[in-house]
Amino acid sequence: MSNHPEIPYKIYLEESEMPKAWYNVRADMKNKPAPLLNPATHQPMSAEDLSAVFCKELVDQELDNDNAYIAIPQEIRDFYKMYRPSPLVRAYCLEKRLQTPAKIYYKFEGNNTSGSHKLNSAIAQAYYAKSQGLKGVTTETGAGQWGTALSMACSYFELDCKVYMVKVSYEQKPFRREVMRTYGASVTPSPSETTEVGKRILAAHPGTGGSLGCAISEAVETAVSTPGYRYVLGSVLNQVLLHQSVIGLETKAALDKYGIKPDMIIGCAGGGSNLGGLISPFVGEMLRGEASYDIVAVEPASCPSFTRGKFAYDYCDTGMVCPLAKMYTLGSNFIPAPNHAGGLRYHGMSPVLSQLYHDGLMRAVSVPQTEVFAAAEEFARVEGILPAPESSHAIKVALDEAKRCKETGEEKTIVFGLTGTGYFDMYAYEKFHDGLMSDYIPTDEELQASFATLPQVD
Amino acid sequence: MSNHPEIPYKIYLEESEMPKAWYNVRADMKNKPAPLLNPATHQPMSAEDLSAVFCKELVDQELDNDNAYIAIPQEIRDFYKMYRPSPLVRAYCLEKRLQTPAKIYYKFEGNNTSGSHKLNSAIAQAYYAKSQGLKGVTTETGAGQWGTALSMACSYFELDCKVYMVKVSYEQKPFRREVMRTYGASVTPSPSETTEVGKRILAAHPGTGGSLGCAISEAVETAVSTPGYRYVLGSVLNQVLLHQSVIGLETKAALDKYGIKPDMIIGCAGGGSNLGGLISPFVGEMLRGEASYDIVAVEPASCPSFTRGKFAYDYCDTGMVCPLAKMYTLGSNFIPAPNHAGGLRYHGMSPVLSQLYHDGLMRAVSVPQTEVFAAAEEFARVEGILPAPESSHAIKVALDEAKRCKETGEEKTIVFGLTGTGYFDMYAYEKFHDGLMSDYIPTDEELQASFATLPQVD
Repeated sequence: MSNHPEIPYKIYLEESEMPKAWYNVRADMKNKPAPLLNPATHQPMSAEDLSAVFCKELVDQELDNDNAYIAIPQEIRDFYKMYRPSPLVRAYCLEKRLQTPAKIYYKFEGNNTSGSHKLNSAIAQAYYAKSQGLKGVTTETGAGQWGTALSMACSYFELDCKVYMVKVSYEQKPFRREVMRTYGASVTPSPSETTEVGKRILAAHPGTGGSLGCAISEAVETAVSTPGYRYVLGSVLNQVLLHQSVIGLETKAALDKYGIKPDMIIGCAGGGSNLGGLISPFVGEMLRGEASYDIVAVEPASCPSFTRGKFAYDYCDTGMVCPLAKMYTLGSNFIPAPNHAGGLRYHGMSPVLSQLYHDGLMRAVSVPQTEVFAAAEEFARVEGILPAPESSHAIKVALDEAKRCKETGEEKTIVFGLTGTGYFDMYAYEKFHDGLMSDYIPTDEELQASFATLPQVD
Repeated sequence: MSNHPEIPYKIYLEESEMPKAWYNVRADMKNKPAPLLNPATHQPMSAEDLSAVFCKELVDQELDNDNAYIAIPQEIRDFYKMYRPSPLVRAYCLEKRLQTPAKIYYKFEGNNTSGSHKLNSAIAQAYYAKSQGLKGVTTETGAGQWGTALSMACSYFELDCKVYMVKVSYEQKPFRREVMRTYGASVTPSPSETTEVGKRILAAHPGTGGSLGCAISEAVETAVSTPGYRYVLGSVLNQVLLHQSVIGLETKAALDKYGIKPDMIIGCAGGGSNLGGLISPFVGEMLRGEASYDIVAVEPASCPSFTRGKFAYDYCDTGMVCPLAKMYTLGSNFIPAPNHAGGLRYHGMSPVLSQLYHDGLMRAVSVPQTEVFAAAEEFARVEGILPAPESSHAIKVALDEAKRCKETGEEKTIVFGLTGTGYFDMYAYEKFHDGLMSDYIPTDEELQASFATLPQVD
């Protein structure tokens, strides 16, 4: 490392060093992710099938397992320049406070109004929708980060934006709704009476707080039944991981610039968009036999798709109107307990990440939410940034590892994804401060009941 | 400009280019700001008098009218590196949308958890308190940005932090309180029963929503009556403007790097901390006869200290326990109407800025809040950033000027301070979206009644 300059607190790439193409890790995977299946026929979804739901260009990206690099259109690169490159931060202050020999870095994606990395894919999806001449898009949002990101992207391209927001979040986060309204979006709590599937779910589960799976069903129904609209999704899909590769590409470029080789790369995992984006270029090196890393997915103990789910074909939504995806899943009717505040509440997991995990390229751990909030607070008090609960799952594991290194004396280099800020999660922080937050871990019996709804696919 | 590289969307200084000293504009002022006076004797406050309230080193900075540069201690520079340099953003997307020939830049101070520039002075004041061996500090906060910033700074140096929060903000912004608690601060709505002055104000004005002036009185009383505590303030004082000069120094360094000479520099003005910090190095050039700029302070029409106030000695607080300052003031018992949501609600103005304004080095305009929120939304939808209502006062004037340039064809270079983000102001945005926000402009009679409380100083 002696040829490299001193490492600053924040490594920013120059605009000219920003990625000009996304990286498609599927091109380097020997075992490709399994194709999406038609929910009725169980046959692979064709481009034509998918085009009823998704924008044409995004369908091509979804199905492309071959091209390693896909050029980022100039309009998207221009938008990226308003809030990217995001900093790769060296946590000098945290290292000092912990007295650890570990070197800790985090890629901070929270410096934009959506408060997270979600904007990276939102702007791409809005761009392709606009290019196709659409009037608007529909989507779902849970914690609200994706809905906010999409609202911002749509307002930039002057597209209409209809958001179905998981009811429990809608109620806990009224200000998230106002941010989306500021960007001109309409926001409906889900399940709602505005769709057939919403009415069905409400009839079956009166008073339900909703789930991402429900909200997806409603958004898809609205998209396919409204001329000039398509559905867009903020995670899980191959196209989303492709767009989010900008996180990993920037991270790798920043590390390379200073000759830093990470030992451990940690990301939180809900649907997999951040984790997939962060690790793609590193996993690519592993797949090509060029390097090896200890890659860790961190998920909530209350929604443990990797660590306790099944690798099987399942519905992506509760209403069972979406294609089937082969992924680690808890079953499409799995809804985390209402006391779960830490996000990452999707029942499934990105098919790309599921395949990588199945093939042993990464490992996964699950953590209880009170420990996650304690880690968040410990981090905030030293590094300043108030993290989103989702991001704090990665912080928890990074802190544990740094403390372990203090015991062992290992000078390990740890990189984690700090996906966003927690400014709209203060309701959950309040519960934590007041000692009213509890942990919930589903029983084996609950999971078995949920697995029973998995579709039979030959 | 042909020797300079293309201007990026965001100009970031290198760590090595960050300021190593604050700039003290008073050193270059021919007419120095008038000294603070003892409220009982009307004699200038000595260093000893001030030391009962403020930390020793900060008293020296408060009284220093001579040294142009004051070194920034290494510990503070290290903390700055966690969230600074802040970007100077070229608003390419906004220029394109407005089709204006004007070139628009903004210095964005919102990329830290306090959500504003306030952290620049908070960390300095906490550092000096810690160096002096204090146990803790007290302060007031209105919108909550300063209280959050101070909480962050105190948690970093492991100091206790007691915040008196203006009651109306405390009630409208419960989540601000939670952020402060995350950083370990205690937060009390003001006026409160915890101080003598609070009890007195409550008795005289039952049900009052409070004001910054009240909260200052309570925080000062608590500081002087609690061993090991001192009071710290987030604006108005000379020391705060000194710390905030880091904003202007970075802005000037970034502009100089690309050979950009601004025509117009715009800042919002409440107590003057952001505006003073932003403009100091530029005003210094004007005072030394090296350059000239059109410098514009923007204040709310509902709290118009520059444009409708008197330049006179006045109390800094409602309880009249603080020193007298010579400044533009609306009278220390002036409280903006409850429908005023846009911040910048202090009755007075920084003595430094007051003197500069009095001497013709800057001009001031006032704007009604509904126009401010409309400008905020227009800006957010193109540039992405959701601005704080305070910052949006500057945005309003910058947008108007850019639109005027479109009419006239002037290629004016406009720089404005974007002091922070509006994530905790969604209650006000909601009122705006729902058409429930109104404008309030105090009548001449109301101001006359308020001026009647000004102290008689020979």
